[in-house]
Amino acid sequence: MIAGTGDRLEGEPLVPHQAEASVFFHHRDLAYTVRVDNPNPVFARMLQQAIGGPEGELRVMTQYMFQGFGYRGPKKYRDMLLATATEEIGHVEVLATAVAMNLEGAKSEMVDDVVTNPAVAARMGALEPRHYLSGGLSAMPSDANGVPFNANCVDAGGNLIANMRANVAAEAIGRTLATRLYELTDDPGMQDMLRFLIARDTMHQQQWLAVLEELGPEMAANAPGDFENEAPHDTHAYSFFNHLMDETMPVDARWTSGPSLDGKGTFTVNEPAPALGQEPVLEPAPPEVHAGAEATAPGGGSVLGRFTRGLGSAVDKVSP
Amino acid sequence: MIAGTGDRLEGEPLVPHQAEASVFFHHRDLAYTVRVDNPNPVFARMLQQAIGGPEGELRVMTQYMFQGFGYRGPKKYRDMLLATATEEIGHVEVLATAVAMNLEGAKSEMVDDVVTNPAVAARMGALEPRHYLSGGLSAMPSDANGVPFNANCVDAGGNLIANMRANVAAEAIGRTLATRLYELTDDPGMQDMLRFLIARDTMHQQQWLAVLEELGPEMAANAPGDFENEAPHDTHAYSFFNHLMDETMPVDARWTSGPSLDGKGTFTVNEPAPALGQEPVLEPAPPEVHAGAEATAPGGGSVLGRFTRGLGSAVDKVSP
Amino acid sequence: MIAGTGDRLEGEPLVPHQAEASVFFHHRDLAYTVRVDNPNPVFARMLQQAIGGPEGELRVMTQYMFQGFGYRGPKKYRDMLLATATEEIGHVEVLATAVAMNLEGAKSEMVDDVVTNPAVAARMGALEPRHYLSGGLSAMPSDANGVPFNANCVDAGGNLIANMRANVAAEAIGRTLATRLYELTDDPGMQDMLRFLIARDTMHQQQWLAVLEELGPEMAANAPGDFENEAPHDTHAYSFFNHLMDETMPVDARWTSGPSLDGKGTFTVNEPAPALGQEPVLEPAPPEVHAGAEATAPGGGSVLGRFTRGLGSAVDKVSP
Amino acid sequence: MIAGTGDRLEGEPLVPHQAEASVFFHHRDLAYTVRVDNPNPVFARMLQQAIGGPEGELRVMTQYMFQGFGYRGPKKYRDMLLATATEEIGHVEVLATAVAMNLEGAKSEMVDDVVTNPAVAARMGALEPRHYLSGGLSAMPSDANGVPFNANCVDAGGNLIANMRANVAAEAIGRTLATRLYELTDDPGMQDMLRFLIARDTMHQQQWLAVLEELGPEMAANAPGDFENEAPHDTHAYSFFNHLMDETMPVDARWTSGPSLDGKGTFTVNEPAPALGQEPVLEPAPPEVHAGAEATAPGGGSVLGRFTRGLGSAVDKVSP
Amino acid sequence: MIAGTGDRLEGEPLVPHQAEASVFFHHRDLAYTVRVDNPNPVFARMLQQAIGGPEGELRVMTQYMFQGFGYRGPKKYRDMLLATATEEIGHVEVLATAVAMNLEGAKSEMVDDVVTNPAVAARMGALEPRHYLSGGLSAMPSDANGVPFNANCVDAGGNLIANMRANVAAEAIGRTLATRLYELTDDPGMQDMLRFLIARDTMHQQQWLAVLEELGPEMAANAPGDFENEAPHDTHAYSFFNHLMDETMPVDARWTSGPSLDGKGTFTVNEPAPALGQEPVLEPAPPEVHAGAEATAPGGGSVLGRFTRGLGSAVDKVSP
Amino acid sequence: MIAGTGDRLEGEPLVPHQAEASVFFHHRDLAYTVRVDNPNPVFARMLQQAIGGPEGELRVMTQYMFQGFGYRGPKKYRDMLLATATEEIGHVEVLATAVAMNLEGAKSEMVDDVVTNPAVAARMGALEPRHYLSGGLSAMPSDANGVPFNANCVDAGGNLIANMRANVAAEAIGRTLATRLYELTDDPGMQDMLRFLIARDTMHQQQWLAVLEELGPEMAANAPGDFENEAPHDTHAYSFFNHLMDETMPVDARWTSGPSLDGKGTFTVNEPAPALGQEPVLEPAPPEVHAGAEATAPGGGSVLGRFTRGLGSAVDKVSP
Repeated sequence: MIAGTGDRLEGEPLVPHQAEASVFFHHRDLAYTVRVDNPNPVFARMLQQAIGGPEGELRVMTQYMFQGFGYRGPKKYRDMLLATATEEIGHVEVLATAVAMNLEGAKSEMVDDVVTNPAVAARMGALEPRHYLSGGLSAMPSDANGVPFNANCVDAGGNLIANMRANVAAEAIGRTLATRLYELTDDPGMQDMLRFLIARDTMHQQQWLAVLEELGPEMAANAPGDFENEAPHDTHAYSFFNHLMDETMPVDARWTSGPSLDGKGTFTVNEPAPALGQEPVLEPAPPEVHAGAEATAPGGGSVLGRFTRGLGSAVDKVSP
Repeated sequence: MIAGTGDRLEGEPLVPHQAEASVFFHHRDLAYTVRVDNPNPVFARMLQQAIGGPEGELRVMTQYMFQGFGYRGPKKYRDMLLATATEEIGHVEVLATAVAMNLEGAKSEMVDDVVTNPAVAARMGALEPRHYLSGGLSAMPSDANGVPFNANCVDAGGNLIANMRANVAAEAIGRTLATRLYELTDDPGMQDMLRFLIARDTMHQQQWLAVLEELGPEMAANAPGDFENEAPHDTHAYSFFNHLMDETMPVDARWTSGPSLDGKGTFTVNEPAPALGQEPVLEPAPPEVHAGAEATAPGGGSVLGRFTRGLGSAVDKVSP
Repeated sequence: MIAGTGDRLEGEPLVPHQAEASVFFHHRDLAYTVRVDNPNPVFARMLQQAIGGPEGELRVMTQYMFQGFGYRGPKKYRDMLLATATEEIGHVEVLATAVAMNLEGAKSEMVDDVVTNPAVAARMGALEPRHYLSGGLSAMPSDANGVPFNANCVDAGGNLIANMRANVAAEAIGRTLATRLYELTDDPGMQDMLRFLIARDTMHQQQWLAVLEELGPEMAANAPGDFENEAPHDTHAYSFFNHLMDETMPVDARWTSGPSLDGKGTFTVNEPAPALGQEPVLEPAPPEVHAGAEATAPGGGSVLGRFTRGLGSAVDKVSP
Repeated sequence: MIAGTGDRLEGEPLVPHQAEASVFFHHRDLAYTVRVDNPNPVFARMLQQAIGGPEGELRVMTQYMFQGFGYRGPKKYRDMLLATATEEIGHVEVLATAVAMNLEGAKSEMVDDVVTNPAVAARMGALEPRHYLSGGLSAMPSDANGVPFNANCVDAGGNLIANMRANVAAEAIGRTLATRLYELTDDPGMQDMLRFLIARDTMHQQQWLAVLEELGPEMAANAPGDFENEAPHDTHAYSFFNHLMDETMPVDARWTSGPSLDGKGTFTVNEPAPALGQEPVLEPAPPEVHAGAEATAPGGGSVLGRFTRGLGSAVDKVSP
Repeated sequence: MIAGTGDRLEGEPLVPHQAEASVFFHHRDLAYTVRVDNPNPVFARMLQQAIGGPEGELRVMTQYMFQGFGYRGPKKYRDMLLATATEEIGHVEVLATAVAMNLEGAKSEMVDDVVTNPAVAARMGALEPRHYLSGGLSAMPSDANGVPFNANCVDAGGNLIANMRANVAAEAIGRTLATRLYELTDDPGMQDMLRFLIARDTMHQQQWLAVLEELGPEMAANAPGDFENEAPHDTHAYSFFNHLMDETMPVDARWTSGPSLDGKGTFTVNEPAPALGQEPVLEPAPPEVHAGAEATAPGGGSVLGRFTRGLGSAVDKVSP
Repeated sequence: MIAGTGDRLEGEPLVPHQAEASVFFHHRDLAYTVRVDNPNPVFARMLQQAIGGPEGELRVMTQYMFQGFGYRGPKKYRDMLLATATEEIGHVEVLATAVAMNLEGAKSEMVDDVVTNPAVAARMGALEPRHYLSGGLSAMPSDANGVPFNANCVDAGGNLIANMRANVAAEAIGRTLATRLYELTDDPGMQDMLRFLIARDTMHQQQWLAVLEELGPEMAANAPGDFENEAPHDTHAYSFFNHLMDETMPVDARWTSGPSLDGKGTFTVNEPAPALGQEPVLEPAPPEVHAGAEATAPGGGSVLGRFTRGLGSAVDKVSP
């Protein structure tokens, strides 16, 4: 019998218990104060990139969650991943609240001034129409262009080093986005909220880097770390292939000479980059592919050829 | 100044405070026991539909979250939405854990029996390759076919009745999926887990229906409820248009006669369905659309025509 | 032999016949008059949400079609689904025509007034660039942000109650969108067209609700209705789990006390929400997963471990 | 006033009328007989490619519909497009019915023979899980891998020649798919249905080609046909650029010598392909882009730089 | 042993060699000069459609690449495809450079004039926010609305005629887009670049048409060309089905009379379009589908019914 | 005037020139030898993940290309990015060729042995149907589940450090995938090809790390590096927020104590994680949002409220 409790003996029954508190809890207060002095519906649109874009909070929330849920190593890394995943849910709430408040009202006289000032109009551009049409003045799980969040950008590969690398990258991209959003607003409340989120991005990036340091000399690490390059491919593992036709690489760059960062090789340059393979010549297709006369071999006989022709008759044989 | 605290006077500063607990918390134990007696990697694949499919937990989690974050009415509905949204995060964890455990090992002798038993092989079909290739034996934020979760299916429209309708539908679809998953397994642990999830789907569907009842006579409600059909369109609001060429509608069906469910009209049938409009004849395109000679009006003169031609020269005028 | 005719004897040949009319027909006139007094290319963009958004006509058209094509119950429900699916095709045409006409021209003097009036400019925002670039002044199968229609949002699950719930929701969302579009225009023709579409949304929502009523006491229904909650899970089927850390639920809300809406239980509240499961502890990964040293069990032995290692040698054995 | 009726005088009111029949109609019988002798759930999966894949019927249905709805030229082309678009809706129904019937039952003894015959098992592969999980034994609006239909592949560009080219291509791809599906089945009913669909693909391809012939010498046509290549770019309009490093192009191929097919030039070859541009050197970014120290110009001053910095203060000025 | 070299004897080892140059090379200079006189960030947005839209360069680049990589016929066609695929990579670079340069700065005084001129503001609309937020003033692999490139639109079907048809269509659509972009700018550099790209689109369209001519009488060709329509379906292969209810087709159109373009039939019209099939009646679903009482056959017994019920017990038998 | 040449004087014309070689070139030979001893169509499917998945070559190719095309800093980094982007195009070709060769034929006797061996059948699972249906035995631009490549996963943010982080992550994920593919095959040719690709992934990861080292102390770097955390947010920049309800963080982990990795702070832990914000209370919606009676403020008056109501009348005023 397979079960999920760490210290249970094989065969021992797994006893469900009524815990005192549920697995996820939500607290009334926001993770950080959201204050909007000058509501700006275009800035609401910009904030959506930090919610549903590939640089946004829905991505890191999902990424850290699935990395944690599937982690098979020491409990401390699972805890760390899930603690921060849970923090990111609160960041989604902070940003969604900021979007909703930027879509709210202001004094009427002020509004007409804003929207009829041509400089502001030109620079502000347009609303995200779905903020009104689909969301009714609330945030959407999509990016600044209204493209719905797509989990295609989530990296959760079940290798701690690769995961940490992916997380460092996600925070680097997210922090860059947050600083650009910061430049787009003079609103003190929004600036303060973004400074808080930038600080948290800083910490998160630092903590993923700290795990890499804890795991060993970072520079030496490849992910996955348990697969070694062997001859003859070790020579390909530390050589820059120069695919530029008209430029030579600087011979003294960090990546063209000296020891590699994992300490296992010496950087070199291949000028020009080699073509190590043959000219590819594919076999003609069997007739049932309908590839056209010029690309078809009359006799057929490929795996798929037999597969496709065989399917019907095989079914036939077992049918009355 | 705009701010988010309910009882704050205008102009009064909003004072951030150090709360005693964070906005979202995660508890060590799962929302429900996950026990897998006979690990089955194909069943792991099937469970993915309940994680990342449009019928799955990532959808309802995101849907209830964004409905709650953007809700502008009484606090009790916001609380209810966020409490259940938070519960759904835990369901994602339960299912992701079940996937990971179904991908785990069994005794070797048993494995070969399973995979070489042709009846099992034929019926089980194939693994989700990304469970191994991308997830390294863990769940993915995608559906049973490996299609990544796409928030396109999230309904969070800022109208409580429409939201409740969408939530009732999401739970109806999710509960149907869960019962089908239940049929696919004889594993006692998986059956128990699915029975729990089905029970929770039941409660969630009941609670959204209860809100509709609390809001007033459900049958009478349209969403949005504050837009009335007026003459001449009130006649179109309770008539079934029969677009079938060769069938008449039964005159005694609930939807073809008797009072409408909102109590505002009487059902009728239009046989055949009417075409109430004109034959559409679009104007020829201006030349700059390059619509082809047969579709172009030489003189141009449309809004867009002037727009496009004007853009360059307008820029020109303000350039040196 | 399997065939699709209802009253055919087994073994009797199915005789195709030349019917007098084809399966789908198109009539010259529009389903409703499309009149545009003041062409507005930004409103054309807004209308796209009602064509290709998850709230739009392409979604309900596809949803009702596939529900009807796959329906295995009484003919009257299939007829009803396909009649309304067919009606929705006509709504796509009405809206696509409205988009095309809003992209058409107006008198030149008027145009310059419109586009140079800063209040209008600021409020109108920008065109959907693909209306010109890709469509050449015609509608696109996409939403107001130009995101192409994605059938991911289509619910067609082969359970009549779940389908009806999904259809009620789709019309609720669609009707909400239509009323918001109505607010965005003063054009009498566009207002009239939207009033017609709102009336049809009303009828469609009423008819799906009528089916639910006809099928039995609506409040009592879960989808699927043929799966009962049994002990010990019946207690989970009517209890609100409160995942809020700092708020108690009102004890007198419709969803926290009194009989459940399906008449099978009594609402209660679990304060706080329980964690009914164990702490999840996953097994280490086998070496071939390359999960990193800290997450790997040397001996391997899992289903997938054997699977992956076995694949090559199994192929090997049957190769020369 | 703008309106859609062709012969109406300006200012004359557009009178809606009660037509005798609705815009789209659905007939009871299928467009073609669907007969399945040996139900095969894997073949059901394969048929999905012809429903929801980029080569499938949902694509051409949507493509011809939107081309027709937006067409601004002679009525006969609009009619032709909409007649065939309407036909394609019926093809979706035929295929969806075929999927549903392939998912239906057969005699039990036969079934076990089929699924336990290893040759069949190996060749048949696995079911599309969503046929059961999401569709409940019915077709889905998705492709053979369960990827939902995405209107991204629809070409409807508002230029008749480009549209005809796109339609010829869509039918060529669709017909290729249909012949490959034909090779996968021995079922007489399925073979007959596919032969019918292939015949219709033939006609559709022929009719789009016929429009191209009717419009003028096909070979001479570029789309859009109203934009001429002029010096110095006319030389680039008929020269093959050889980007292969190690191969010369045959000088006597149809595309390397002789008159061009539009009769306006003479084919030549550029060996090697020229690089006609400069080395691109982008300006450093302004500070607010946060592009990194090495990529930043201290002074800033770009359009966007001023834009972003200006936004806040502009808003500021109009706020109290 | 299977290998990719054309003239190698079976069994002979394939000797990798160090070629003198790598498979792809990049040259310093652009394929064509990119000059921007009046940087226009909205035009940058428009250019994105030509990069990442279905009409754009990423699509044709990927399409020609995959057609070439998989081609199984004569080398000259593979060479031609890959030469032009390689050219398209350079077009992506040209357009990405043009986007970056349009996002660059201009003299400050000029900028304020531009953005505060209401006519320009109104017509220019808004920036693509991700040009700043995500790209930091550089091009993105997405379309004019910021929708990321999706390879769903790539046609690479392994049939030369279908591929050529798809390529002719792609260039027709792309050329139409380029001429519309041309109309949107007065910038001499941008106009010159677009004229160059239009000329190359011309050549590419001509060369794909030339292949079709070289392969035989184009008009006679169907794709795939090796599948003949036979009786009784040959009659369906040349008959226009008129699905319009209220219009007859012109009898003298090119597609309604006279010889078909492939020379194999004579065009006719079916008025009205026939329904050649039966009324579809699907079997009730087995209980495990949970299709609802009205759609369920108590006895079950379908292929899938047995499949699903059998799975668990089959697994059971091989488990201890 | 803006132009792209580095050393051109302002106003000096940019002279296009006929370069000696085009911008991208393609060489006949593959980047590495592709040899397939035992063609395996299921392995062909697995290889697709390395072509079109988020871990694959189309992603890194597009990512490095767009990073290079938009780079605004020193030429050496642009060169490096484009050299490696160009190398990745060749990797796509290598993998697409490997897919095509795995889909090719083997001796017939062997084939039947393979497909009828139940152990192989069970473990191999099913083909990617589109390899036959859509590709005609060639590779597709999609992943192992047939999901088309989506550029949503491309990170190209215009900040060199963030880009390098994203590139290190992409190679870590890609290298992990490649080692897992390596475990799935015993084919010597495929193993050799994968070892080569793994070696190149090694080098690419090393070179991106080398850039980070060259740019300064890696550990100290945040991206973007030019935005400092200031009081009061500097305290949030180095504190781990523990969102776990039932676990304390280890106080001696690298990320909970000691100097931060950027040397600017000291790690601490917040137990429990704080909620630093207020309870969010959104304003009621204006009537035109149709948010439902309970969520609507009668008076309206918000920015958007005025916006939407004002639009029509503003248009009205400038219309006759």
